Amino acid sequence: MMERIFIVGTGLIGASVGLALRSAGFDGEIVGTGPTEQTLSIAKQLGAIDRWVTRDNAEAAAAASDIILLAGPVLSILDWIERLAPVLGEHQLVTDVGSTKVQIADRAAKLYNQPGRAHFLPGHPMAGKESGGAALAEATLFRGATWLFTPLDQSPAPLNGTTHPLEASIHSLDAEWREWVVKFGAHTIDLAPARHDEICAWVSHLPQMLSTALAALLEETFGTDAKGREEVAAIGGRALRETTRLGSSPYSMWRDIALTNSDPIAATLHALEQKLAHLQENLRTPQLKEEFLLANQFRARRDR
Amino acid sequence: MMERIFIVGTGLIGASVGLALRSAGFDGEIVGTGPTEQTLSIAKQLGAIDRWVTRDNAEAAAAASDIILLAGPVLSILDWIERLAPVLGEHQLVTDVGSTKVQIADRAAKLYNQPGRAHFLPGHPMAGKESGGAALAEATLFRGATWLFTPLDQSPAPLNGTTHPLEASIHSLDAEWREWVVKFGAHTIDLAPARHDEICAWVSHLPQMLSTALAALLEETFGTDAKGREEVAAIGGRALRETTRLGSSPYSMWRDIALTNSDPIAATLHALEQKLAHLQENLRTPQLKEEFLLANQFRARRDR
Repeated sequence: MMERIFIVGTGLIGASVGLALRSAGFDGEIVGTGPTEQTLSIAKQLGAIDRWVTRDNAEAAAAASDIILLAGPVLSILDWIERLAPVLGEHQLVTDVGSTKVQIADRAAKLYNQPGRAHFLPGHPMAGKESGGAALAEATLFRGATWLFTPLDQSPAPLNGTTHPLEASIHSLDAEWREWVVKFGAHTIDLAPARHDEICAWVSHLPQMLSTALAALLEETFGTDAKGREEVAAIGGRALRETTRLGSSPYSMWRDIALTNSDPIAATLHALEQKLAHLQENLRTPQLKEEFLLANQFRARRDR
Repeated sequence: MMERIFIVGTGLIGASVGLALRSAGFDGEIVGTGPTEQTLSIAKQLGAIDRWVTRDNAEAAAAASDIILLAGPVLSILDWIERLAPVLGEHQLVTDVGSTKVQIADRAAKLYNQPGRAHFLPGHPMAGKESGGAALAEATLFRGATWLFTPLDQSPAPLNGTTHPLEASIHSLDAEWREWVVKFGAHTIDLAPARHDEICAWVSHLPQMLSTALAALLEETFGTDAKGREEVAAIGGRALRETTRLGSSPYSMWRDIALTNSDPIAATLHALEQKLAHLQENLRTPQLKEEFLLANQFRARRDR
């Protein structure tokens, strides 16, 4: 049974997990740590954590917790994976909310899930906002969201009704964490880390990169042309607004994703460049119709 | 004074103009024509037109009207420009709602705005829906929208307070049509046809092609992979939904735009391909930050 959780990184996701736990009836202790006292005190004021420790005291707080949730950017999660492994034991569960999973799963597999070491369950809630920070945290952030898990041993998830090849105490924390996630209103899917990173490149990272590319290109083209800026603002409608909306995302939220999922993202970008070149060459041919029909099929499936 | 308007093409835009005219207090006659009796009878049932004539009788109906609104796809508008020119006279105004303006303005300049010929005012309301048809028409479709004009003679718009170098009767219909458009709730902007087509390529045609390309690519990648389709559906969120939404647009609504604005669209597609390649090459370098900052600037300007 989880009696104490230690949330490492109380930004938007970490603080929302704290609030969601409380809202779902968790009555144990929620301890937090993070890079700035300001963020931690906002999280405490919101009720997302009961108390916080400085990062220098994180090992002790982790050692005294049942579940440790790593909730920063991916590179920070990778650091914490290394830092906490030696001070944790078999009875503990470490899980995370990192946006890419191959590097996290690889690093964790070397240090966890072995005799004398804590259990590690990589996770990734598909929830967020255009900007981060504890102040935007909400207990309902995960309601209706998909929460992905990429278990290190690739065994079926306990919730699927099969047994987990881990000792009972660890199994029960793994299962308990998944139960909390379901209580947050999320539905869970298990998949392999590489598949996770490939699918996320297609459905999340590519849309981000193309929206950033389009907005950056428009800024380059019209940024120093006052009349053009006015015309773009007056003439651009919902199509422009929606396709550039993600251009608002800060680099700080995407740097680690680009660094830790470069190859899958590069592959999707390359495929899109080829597809755009194909459209460009076929603006006057019936091939353009084929592309519209394919796109219509994709959307029809989603609209059903 | 406009006492009778003839709407050629009573689809979404044409029928919405009829409804908007009635709603704005027009008490003259609204006559329609179009390719199918079905569409025309829907338009009549909705009250968008008072009566309709077959296309064979369009010349007579046009000759008996003060304003003729050409409201089909661009290639159809080009045909009507040629077909109606000989039967109209100086006291009449022809205007249109075509999505591209260079070819329409060029064609019209050869046949209108000269002694004995009708006046032509090319127009383009930035309003629409993902699919067309009279059944979706609404009197409020143009409320808050921008209605672009690309006058053939490039003189300042009469509404700007300057005089128009045309005879009084034509001037007054030009001004009257602009007044109706303002009564529809739209605001008008005048620009040169080539500038219109360039700006629309950036803010409307490129977002469409990009969304079609992304949706078509996803359909090719996952369309025959049932498990992948499921994962994409479960994991893709708002980012995917918004960046592929325009993928629902039918080819029939875009064929003429691609055919009549190929060069500007090709130029924007090429620029975007280059930009995506730049991002692809810089996923691991600080250059990526520069692109995010440019995109942030573009969005910050729009969000203000």
